[in-house]
Amino acid sequence: MFSIDLKTAMKFGRKVRVAGAGKTPFGAFPDQNLRSLSVAAGRKALDDAGLESDAVQAFYLGNFAGPEFTGQNHLAPYISTALGMTGIPSTRFEAACASSGAAFFHAFMAVAAGIYETVMVLGAEKMTCQPTPRVAEILGGAGDCSGEMRVGSTFPSVFAMIACRHMHDFGTTREHLAAVAVKNHENGALNPDAQMRKVITLEQAMAARFIAEPLNLFDCSLVSDGAAAVILSASRGDVAVRGVAQASDYVALDQKADVTTFPAVREAARQAYAMAGVEAADIDFAELHDCFTIAEIVAMEDLGFVARGRGGFATFDGETRRGGRIPINASGGLKSKGHPVGATGVGQLCDIVQQLRGQSGDRQLTKIGLGLAQNLGGSGATCVVSILERA
Amino acid sequence: MFSIDLKTAMKFGRKVRVAGAGKTPFGAFPDQNLRSLSVAAGRKALDDAGLESDAVQAFYLGNFAGPEFTGQNHLAPYISTALGMTGIPSTRFEAACASSGAAFFHAFMAVAAGIYETVMVLGAEKMTCQPTPRVAEILGGAGDCSGEMRVGSTFPSVFAMIACRHMHDFGTTREHLAAVAVKNHENGALNPDAQMRKVITLEQAMAARFIAEPLNLFDCSLVSDGAAAVILSASRGDVAVRGVAQASDYVALDQKADVTTFPAVREAARQAYAMAGVEAADIDFAELHDCFTIAEIVAMEDLGFVARGRGGFATFDGETRRGGRIPINASGGLKSKGHPVGATGVGQLCDIVQQLRGQSGDRQLTKIGLGLAQNLGGSGATCVVSILERA
Repeated sequence: MFSIDLKTAMKFGRKVRVAGAGKTPFGAFPDQNLRSLSVAAGRKALDDAGLESDAVQAFYLGNFAGPEFTGQNHLAPYISTALGMTGIPSTRFEAACASSGAAFFHAFMAVAAGIYETVMVLGAEKMTCQPTPRVAEILGGAGDCSGEMRVGSTFPSVFAMIACRHMHDFGTTREHLAAVAVKNHENGALNPDAQMRKVITLEQAMAARFIAEPLNLFDCSLVSDGAAAVILSASRGDVAVRGVAQASDYVALDQKADVTTFPAVREAARQAYAMAGVEAADIDFAELHDCFTIAEIVAMEDLGFVARGRGGFATFDGETRRGGRIPINASGGLKSKGHPVGATGVGQLCDIVQQLRGQSGDRQLTKIGLGLAQNLGGSGATCVVSILERA
Repeated sequence: MFSIDLKTAMKFGRKVRVAGAGKTPFGAFPDQNLRSLSVAAGRKALDDAGLESDAVQAFYLGNFAGPEFTGQNHLAPYISTALGMTGIPSTRFEAACASSGAAFFHAFMAVAAGIYETVMVLGAEKMTCQPTPRVAEILGGAGDCSGEMRVGSTFPSVFAMIACRHMHDFGTTREHLAAVAVKNHENGALNPDAQMRKVITLEQAMAARFIAEPLNLFDCSLVSDGAAAVILSASRGDVAVRGVAQASDYVALDQKADVTTFPAVREAARQAYAMAGVEAADIDFAELHDCFTIAEIVAMEDLGFVARGRGGFATFDGETRRGGRIPINASGGLKSKGHPVGATGVGQLCDIVQQLRGQSGDRQLTKIGLGLAQNLGGSGATCVVSILERA
């Protein structure tokens, strides 16, 4: 595997800061469309940065499947012009559920390399306008449609296979999975922007109906509308981007040598840690891509927060709760906060910025030196890992 | 409008070269899918560069509507892994018909800024798998679906309105439009990779049935399958990228102040000329985005090859034929060569590389100092302009 020495590449580069962050609540908003949600998030980020739209030199949109959910394509200028921006490069980035993570990665590089002073990265998705079977079909496009999806898989069943194997290999239990859901609902209940603000017990989490055994309703993230935006700047902002990396792998589950670990996550983490000059143990808190409970468990292992196979045990033991050793998804995660696919990556960054600023209200963490976001596409074919700290 | 001083940004940058180029023929290929076409083009580009896939440090895919045409999304790793690449950043760029132009622009910046030594830019689209009404609907997604497209427009009708206004304002005639088609068919007939290798007379071009008056069948480009790839390198290759710029504007026609000129084209051209340190008069030949005959006429005016309103007259007078003052679309253009939307931008670059190398066979031009490619998205909401020369 080729190792990109971004750290060396950036030696001539500048520090990149988050100058502004803003997002809409995540949920089902029948009166809002993809553009109105995006404009709301973009304006919040501009206001937060104290900038007007004419300061933005390039627009990076993360969106997974806007054309299929809404019919509208060519979404970057469709949105950026509604924010008052014309003339500038305005481009949509697609990398499945890591679409806005990928947009962020490319935006970061352009600012770090000295090409732009100020850019906007915006993630958005409008999903609730389609019925659930069509949503599952559209999401299935992030898997292998000529293979696993053609024979009847959906993403819950793909992650169910991952969960089964993880249980078989490491002794992970359904209680471990449920513990992820209980924790994330506990956190999300404190987040006014979360879609499902509902505390659940382990018994409730265990008792829900199966979607794809062993994953039940509470093991699955939500179908959501929402948008999130950050302004990256070379000269201003109170949050610094210490590291960011994007990596890729096979789309189809059956092409992976081992389905309980994602090489793209490990590679993106390795590069992001190297760029930041830190190790996994230095990370104080994280927003991980819990599209399913098992995904959070695999991610915490691939990121090096726990030993291989210990993610479920550590979660069950409370290590990842607020106040635990390494708080994960203090926002509520995709599980409780919602998962408007294209918005998720930048949404995670907004949550981290809020924590770093001490603006997270009842879910505010105390140890907030370094925050990490992990944004996953499909069943691990794309991963973007970002590390932020207070500037 | 904010002016990006890319020239200054690149002062610390390196020369970027095209180390390899390759494309499939454009046409209707029922036995090929989006991935097999992409792999064929990617392998040709690697072979041309004398590189293996493990030399590629990042993958930039331009694709407009693969998910809608084929069901498959998350296309970048779906394709890059099939080319033997894992681990690297692998991202899809969407900017309507300028999708692979946008991918090229971002790839260029990353290499110029010193982040990567070697990257692959690949454009691909598979369109002929859908019936024509669905193709028109999918393409309509590049316009404003809540406005012009909702009330019944399609892209032929949008460009028909542009043509009507151009005729009204400048005296452009249907013969002028037909002259674009005749020239591009004459050129495409000499291109073994062109979809429609058929010489037509002005009378034939005039006599075809209307699609959206004043545009008839021969004023419209084709529905095509195809892929094209280039390898960009900081250290090798026989073609240099002298300038490249991307700009944006409103998606809806009714938001434009004047429909006979595209501000995004003028802005991208201004920046590309400035980066290259040249003027319009210095360009020796060009591949322009003739999705409709009127689009070529508007483009040659916006790029400064002729005075405003004179594009039709100049074409009719033969100025843009091979051997004319400024040969345009010696490849046959989208009109005759085919228009697999996501492949078109990189396909234009492949055609320019072929000309610069003197490998264009019967359609080889003689004055080949500077070649320009202009890749348009929608009715002018995105434009990418690139300027190449022999290294």
